[in-house]
Amino acid sequence: MAAPTTFSGEVWAELRLADARDVPHIYSLIHQMAEFELLTDLFAATHELLTSTLFPTPQPAPFTSFTALILDLSPSAIPASADTVGSLRLDLAASPLADPEAAAFPSPRGGGRVTAGFVICFPNYSTFLAKPGLYVEDIFVRAPWRRHGLGRMMLSAVAGRAAEIGMGRVEWCVLDWNQNAIDFYEQMGAEVFTKWRICRLTGPALDKYKGSGSGSQEEKDAGKAE
Amino acid sequence: MAAPTTFSGEVWAELRLADARDVPHIYSLIHQMAEFELLTDLFAATHELLTSTLFPTPQPAPFTSFTALILDLSPSAIPASADTVGSLRLDLAASPLADPEAAAFPSPRGGGRVTAGFVICFPNYSTFLAKPGLYVEDIFVRAPWRRHGLGRMMLSAVAGRAAEIGMGRVEWCVLDWNQNAIDFYEQMGAEVFTKWRICRLTGPALDKYKGSGSGSQEEKDAGKAE
Repeated sequence: MAAPTTFSGEVWAELRLADARDVPHIYSLIHQMAEFELLTDLFAATHELLTSTLFPTPQPAPFTSFTALILDLSPSAIPASADTVGSLRLDLAASPLADPEAAAFPSPRGGGRVTAGFVICFPNYSTFLAKPGLYVEDIFVRAPWRRHGLGRMMLSAVAGRAAEIGMGRVEWCVLDWNQNAIDFYEQMGAEVFTKWRICRLTGPALDKYKGSGSGSQEEKDAGKAE
Repeated sequence: MAAPTTFSGEVWAELRLADARDVPHIYSLIHQMAEFELLTDLFAATHELLTSTLFPTPQPAPFTSFTALILDLSPSAIPASADTVGSLRLDLAASPLADPEAAAFPSPRGGGRVTAGFVICFPNYSTFLAKPGLYVEDIFVRAPWRRHGLGRMMLSAVAGRAAEIGMGRVEWCVLDWNQNAIDFYEQMGAEVFTKWRICRLTGPALDKYKGSGSGSQEEKDAGKAE
């Protein structure tokens, strides 16, 4: 069954664990996200890197390491499976939804399903709680499917799973000018921290620390200047 | 050999992989950090939680999961071992250093060593790079030992190890009013991101999402209000 390009009436959304068959769509969705954020110059993902880093053999249990989830949409009900993390039924009777890209995003799960988004998350650690938490690196929904409650379902489902497995926190980042997103997250119960800033070493600035484990006199002098 | 409470002449610092014997000191150091940050109300760590979350059986390879490192100081040279991540020789000839707490922090590695700090870090993931990075959750040095280049050695050694094992980034957080720290990190080559804000769901705000994976009509209506 081929995916339609216009959806109407009832549509079923499933957030499910991804597997290596989803890599081509994950790649395309990350690229769309990079375009959306005007950050394509930072885009260095490849199918091979995504496969080896997200779907290693053996695959760790979900949410215990890097975890990729896929949002599929279907014109018919999707039976819940062991891979299901969240679901939502949309009612598009009042306004059919055009998804011109649908043919480019057939879900590898078949059944006329279309892949419309993804989540990447992984455990972080709180020393004060001495417990793992879950960090949500990305939540992305393709443009035609936004503003239908799918982002809320995805974040709620991921947060629910984290709470159920005993994690103490769920954290993610938002841009300070994105007041709509901040309002939405606060309304979901999140605290937005205004004082913390992220620091990053990458590229040549990181590579220069290779081999810096052994303390040389030079490092010592640099350190004393601190 | 008992640890001295005043250090003079040459002192050798080692940053090394921690093991379960270090849990009592890690606990005390986290508590000192909570006091320093006036956040003792958030402190919920216990020896048992630290042991089970940081030192599970089997222990994953260093830097592939939650990783604890210990800073030990010694009045004599510490031979490098497989656990050594970084080292630094301090010259205290000009000004001996009093460490009144030294007797409370004997290193379980013996040899008159004193534990003076710790690092907690874990892998994160960059979708744009399709690669793991390293997130440094905490770097802490007990008060008497600050301003001797130990923090720089610790961050440099951890960054060096991350770069050597092919990680694409090293990231951590800083408070926006801590200009000394920001200057130091920038001088080490880090970029400080001013636009990103951390969002957190925790406690009851998180627990309410338990069981939210299956999309109910109520959630759907809430979602449509988004």
